[in-house]
Amino acid sequence: MESLRFVLPQSEIPTHWYNVAADLPSPPLPPLGPDGKPATPEQMGVIFPMAILEQEMSTERWIPIPQEVREIYRLWRPSPLVRAARLEAMLGTPAKIYYKYEGVSPAGSHKPNTAVPQAYYNRQAGIRRIATETGAGQWGCSLALACQMFGIEARVYMVKVSYEQKPYRRSMMRAWGAEIFASPSAMTQTGREALARDPDHPGSLGLAISEAVEEAASRADTNYALGSVLNHVILHQTIIGQEAKKQFEMADDWPDVVFAPCGGGSSFGGMAFPFFADNAAGGRNGKPVRLVAVEPASCPSLTRGKYAYDYGDSSGFTPMMKMFTLGHDFTPPGIHAGGLRYHGASPLVSQLYREGLIEAVAVPQLATFEAGVTFARAEGVIPAPESCHAIRAAIDEALRCKQTGEPRTLLFNLTGHGHFDMSSYDRYFAGELEDFEYPREAIEESLRHLPDFA
Amino acid sequence: MESLRFVLPQSEIPTHWYNVAADLPSPPLPPLGPDGKPATPEQMGVIFPMAILEQEMSTERWIPIPQEVREIYRLWRPSPLVRAARLEAMLGTPAKIYYKYEGVSPAGSHKPNTAVPQAYYNRQAGIRRIATETGAGQWGCSLALACQMFGIEARVYMVKVSYEQKPYRRSMMRAWGAEIFASPSAMTQTGREALARDPDHPGSLGLAISEAVEEAASRADTNYALGSVLNHVILHQTIIGQEAKKQFEMADDWPDVVFAPCGGGSSFGGMAFPFFADNAAGGRNGKPVRLVAVEPASCPSLTRGKYAYDYGDSSGFTPMMKMFTLGHDFTPPGIHAGGLRYHGASPLVSQLYREGLIEAVAVPQLATFEAGVTFARAEGVIPAPESCHAIRAAIDEALRCKQTGEPRTLLFNLTGHGHFDMSSYDRYFAGELEDFEYPREAIEESLRHLPDFA
Repeated sequence: MESLRFVLPQSEIPTHWYNVAADLPSPPLPPLGPDGKPATPEQMGVIFPMAILEQEMSTERWIPIPQEVREIYRLWRPSPLVRAARLEAMLGTPAKIYYKYEGVSPAGSHKPNTAVPQAYYNRQAGIRRIATETGAGQWGCSLALACQMFGIEARVYMVKVSYEQKPYRRSMMRAWGAEIFASPSAMTQTGREALARDPDHPGSLGLAISEAVEEAASRADTNYALGSVLNHVILHQTIIGQEAKKQFEMADDWPDVVFAPCGGGSSFGGMAFPFFADNAAGGRNGKPVRLVAVEPASCPSLTRGKYAYDYGDSSGFTPMMKMFTLGHDFTPPGIHAGGLRYHGASPLVSQLYREGLIEAVAVPQLATFEAGVTFARAEGVIPAPESCHAIRAAIDEALRCKQTGEPRTLLFNLTGHGHFDMSSYDRYFAGELEDFEYPREAIEESLRHLPDFA
Repeated sequence: MESLRFVLPQSEIPTHWYNVAADLPSPPLPPLGPDGKPATPEQMGVIFPMAILEQEMSTERWIPIPQEVREIYRLWRPSPLVRAARLEAMLGTPAKIYYKYEGVSPAGSHKPNTAVPQAYYNRQAGIRRIATETGAGQWGCSLALACQMFGIEARVYMVKVSYEQKPYRRSMMRAWGAEIFASPSAMTQTGREALARDPDHPGSLGLAISEAVEEAASRADTNYALGSVLNHVILHQTIIGQEAKKQFEMADDWPDVVFAPCGGGSSFGGMAFPFFADNAAGGRNGKPVRLVAVEPASCPSLTRGKYAYDYGDSSGFTPMMKMFTLGHDFTPPGIHAGGLRYHGASPLVSQLYREGLIEAVAVPQLATFEAGVTFARAEGVIPAPESCHAIRAAIDEALRCKQTGEPRTLLFNLTGHGHFDMSSYDRYFAGELEDFEYPREAIEESLRHLPDFA
């Protein structure tokens, strides 16, 4: 019986992360402070440990993974690479479809790949508490898990409406020992002001970020952690693509096209950048692997945004970063259930896209859930709505192969399971979801609010 | 870096199930029909396919696993055997603790191990629909998944109170294409009568079984499937223990004691029986492996029940089986959140216990959740409440080893993850759960209702 799952031994857990900054045609542009000058490590050191900031700025190609981090990775890594043979048969395609399954982590997604080293470096720096924000709860869970592993207190500001509507993500964080506050909370000045303006304030991700950053900035023993966008986050996620490459060697195969969902950019960068390393060196088989970022049509930063300096958060508290952005106050419509709601794409992903080294495609919401259900019926796993974006694009490519007869090898990043997103599937089954594409004017309007240094 | 996860290649997925009936000191006692005579295959053939009935009656030691079933197992099997090194360190025990993790199946538990062959044999017999019942939804999900894989319609009668309180298990079944009815339903005579008596009837597992059996018995194209208790179900689950044995060989180790949660008995039998095969042959290392069934103190069929013929369901529709039972109308208290609510233990498990070949222990509820949280904080995975019973017993043994200094090797069956049971954890964290032990008189009372042939 042919093997469909390719599982590396634990001795093959990569020893280094891959830093794409070493292979960029031009150096990455620095983040800018409020005065328009490059933000200094001293400024950012208020909320991040120096080891993280060094990674954020580094242009070294290989950065060693600390032994203590690999020991935690060992709890679920290497994650499996799986040949989706039943999906291929269901589609009747000559394409070979593989997926890398990150849902095997205890938190159910790829996010712990960076939460663990972030907790580790903070612990090394003597930090006892990390404050962060979470929307639906995926990042908050991952940080709670990671902090538990290193004996750090995790304090999670959870957008109030999610706090009330997603109690199970909350219980999961609690099981791992985190403290969770509905944001806006009475714990911070920002939260108290918001509550004074509106005692029934539903919260927002921007506000929760502000609360977490305020707490981190005001206490010497407390730092802040972010789950996507920044260079060090994507660096940590490159363990995904590196493992995938080794697993393709096991399978004696190699992808022609790689798909990953793209919101902030960490699941895309984590999967695609190690393949880009080969492309930068001329292509492994003499031809480059196509790398496709898949974003929602209702939050299309790469395909419809502007390449400009913009704030990382909606309130304008963070340094400005050069990235494809829809404007920092852009908000996807309420009808959008599929995650990937960030207004920009990570600077590294943006730069590669700008230079024509990766591709991007936007997919409509209903088609992503349809792809998720097709996948679940063929392969069993019920995918997270974010992952459904990559599945949609991979299925579309497989169907093109069916028309042309080309036996391409496709790979996608199955970033997580959907066990905590079944309410989104419910809305899909009930016909309550719709496709939405922003009119050009709406995007132009939010792009008018870009900062002066854009 | 030492390996903590032992993952077999897919070529090592077992080719046969192990039938413990071949190694019992005396032959299993047959189920009895309403007249007190052994139930015939013809009687049971109304709702089960002949291939399943043959397995139910078989005393062959090895029964081949069809290739089509192994191909589906391949979607998630072999499941990992994991050394819980962080848990050992947290407990400060000289014991080595391993767990076999069945939560990697798409449905999140060990149940698909039997749902898949049951769907396969029904499909082979030309059956187009399978009706079943589900309480919390774990079994319903597994059957929905399995039926999807073989193109069979799954019709799941879900206890109404769970249908309303556990919408996400329902969405999961729907994602796999099943039809779900709140029981009592208007689909069956049994359901209509119950609704006529009480339009707000909350449903019960006994009633849901009756509805599913009625539908299966009344339609030639429809059969019934059960997720535990029966011999063929435990037979299918022996893939767990067989894999575990191969994985211990990989790890160059061998368990001294094996723990598994025990409700109906399939997760215990599935894990323990392959080790019993060695015990029956004199013990692999010249000494037997201790096999410990762990049940809830509030539903203690093995440790406090009576070994007698009793009905398999609460309404008395099924054949009678010789088993340890608390009485077919025994119901655990509402305060009991941890699953394993069945009134009896499978006839095979019961017979081995009666003959002193396995052990049993009952654990109180609060201690099981405490063990689950300890495990989650050490190892990451949030365990299903059922699995927490085995974890409790394994931790207790590890703590005894700490006192005595004995470096025993322990194995437990981590039967599933707790992603759909977070509301039980919530009740635990909120202090809403209590320990409950039935007074002797209450058990004696329900044992007074045993059938005449007991």
